Amino acid sequence: MEKGQLLYEGKAKRLYATNEENVLFVAYKDSATAFNGEKKEEIAGKGVLNNKITSLIFKKLHAAGIPSHFIRQISDTEQLVKKVEIIPIELVVRNIAAGSLATRLGIEEGTKLKRPIVEYYYKDDALGDPFITTEHIDILEIATPEEVETLYQKGLEVNAVLQPFFHEIGVTLVDFKLEFGRDEQGTVLLADEISPDTCRLWDEETKQHLDKDVFRRNLGSLTEVYEIILSRLGGFTK
Amino acid sequence: MEKGQLLYEGKAKRLYATNEENVLFVAYKDSATAFNGEKKEEIAGKGVLNNKITSLIFKKLHAAGIPSHFIRQISDTEQLVKKVEIIPIELVVRNIAAGSLATRLGIEEGTKLKRPIVEYYYKDDALGDPFITTEHIDILEIATPEEVETLYQKGLEVNAVLQPFFHEIGVTLVDFKLEFGRDEQGTVLLADEISPDTCRLWDEETKQHLDKDVFRRNLGSLTEVYEIILSRLGGFTK
Ligand SMILES: Nc1ncnc2c1ncn2[C@@H]1O[C@H](COP(=O)(O)OP(=O)(O)O)[C@@H](O)[C@H]1O
Ligand SMILES: Nc1ncnc2c1ncn2[C@@H]1O[C@H](COP(=O)(O)OP(=O)(O)O)[C@@H](O)[C@H]1O
Ligand SMILES: [Mg+2]
Ligand SMILES: [Mg+2]
Repeated sequence: MEKGQLLYEGKAKRLYATNEENVLFVAYKDSATAFNGEKKEEIAGKGVLNNKITSLIFKKLHAAGIPSHFIRQISDTEQLVKKVEIIPIELVVRNIAAGSLATRLGIEEGTKLKRPIVEYYYKDDALGDPFITTEHIDILEIATPEEVETLYQKGLEVNAVLQPFFHEIGVTLVDFKLEFGRDEQGTVLLADEISPDTCRLWDEETKQHLDKDVFRRNLGSLTEVYEIILSRLGGFTK
Repeated sequence: MEKGQLLYEGKAKRLYATNEENVLFVAYKDSATAFNGEKKEEIAGKGVLNNKITSLIFKKLHAAGIPSHFIRQISDTEQLVKKVEIIPIELVVRNIAAGSLATRLGIEEGTKLKRPIVEYYYKDDALGDPFITTEHIDILEIATPEEVETLYQKGLEVNAVLQPFFHEIGVTLVDFKLEFGRDEQGTVLLADEISPDTCRLWDEETKQHLDKDVFRRNLGSLTEVYEIILSRLGGFTK
């Protein structure tokens, strides 16, 4: 597979064409951003960690019967994925109140929710990725009602696989963000990444934050905690 | 009916007990507030206007088969209502993009929505009345799923009655906020007020704002435009 021209540079990854029409090359960057890009830093080693962690998680999901865009990891910072047309919705699944949910509802961070909930955010940097509902999605016509139902169900399915998976390694899956896209047949496929950048992961015993909140809240070294996740997942960190 | 002790003083109304257990005395105040109470002003005559307009609208809804807490208007600023346990949800129904929806979705104010949409806000001053979803309502346990379904359906019914009603008097019903409560049998009843404080009302021809946006956006005299609404509704303004 040949790495072709740069198609898109995002906050955390670069996308390249390949010699196959429906395959992309994804290169994970060392950039950390938060608060809609207001806080920004280069952190050496972050790209490698997120590429390896995402690859392991997508493999785990495949094994559990949940397909995604992931084809294979091809280097420390790169993977091959199926090209999709990204649906501009960030799907957030929550098991425990944290971050914006805790603030919005006035619930103490760490409170277990009586059931997992799903939220939708409009993926639009200029608008600050606003929180939206299925009725807004209908108005905006960014996904059909059937697609929204698929997103919702897939979000809960991913949660049902990842929650016990992280529990096995002593980690609480607090919440996470997913992105989906349409493949060439129009089928909705799980895409983007699943990493400590896009999940809240707490050590079950110590409650230590093992995710991007370490960067958002200045709690220490980001790569140190991402390495804890990678090594518990059974990946080699060096 | 005797006016008893003051039970509650809100931003726009005072509630008094009466000699009947399940009946309240509501007195409309002259206070105007916006932005979660940050902007505040006393506007002589506002209470009379909102009391008269709300009374006319609740009568209209009764005639159309939509019951509410409203019993009768008893003075320029006062009405009798059935006492309910207010459900802490503000239900917003929108026909046209304006205010926070226009900002949130990046849609130009005035854009007609392809269908009416319903939004939920958590009635909690300390949290700033945050925008929430039915899943948050479930987590907070502030209403049952059946009650939420009732609120949703009643919101659309009220819209279906009020939209043509305002159209008859040359006014576009852009959006509005409703509150509901549980009566002594636990039945969900439309409550609170329906006035230019709680609706966006635009003149169909001139697009003039005939509602509280005049106060929020400093567009002139609030009572002048509220009087236009009252007189078009067939009420006497003096
Ligand atoms: N399989 C895929 N096909 C096409 N685009 C993808 C795929 N997976 C992820 N993307 C998109 O790649 C872009 C780059 O990722 P990232 O750097 O995280 O961007 P962002 O700054 O939008 O978060 C994002 O717009 C993401 O939605
Ligand atoms: N029928 C009713 N029974 C009990 N409370 C009611 C009824 N109708 C409205 N209320 C409540 O009366 C209070 C006073 O109204 P208002 O001044 O508008 O208050 P707020 O400052 O909360 O907007 C509000 O909390 C409203 O929900
Ligand atoms: Mg991203
Ligand atoms: Mg009020």
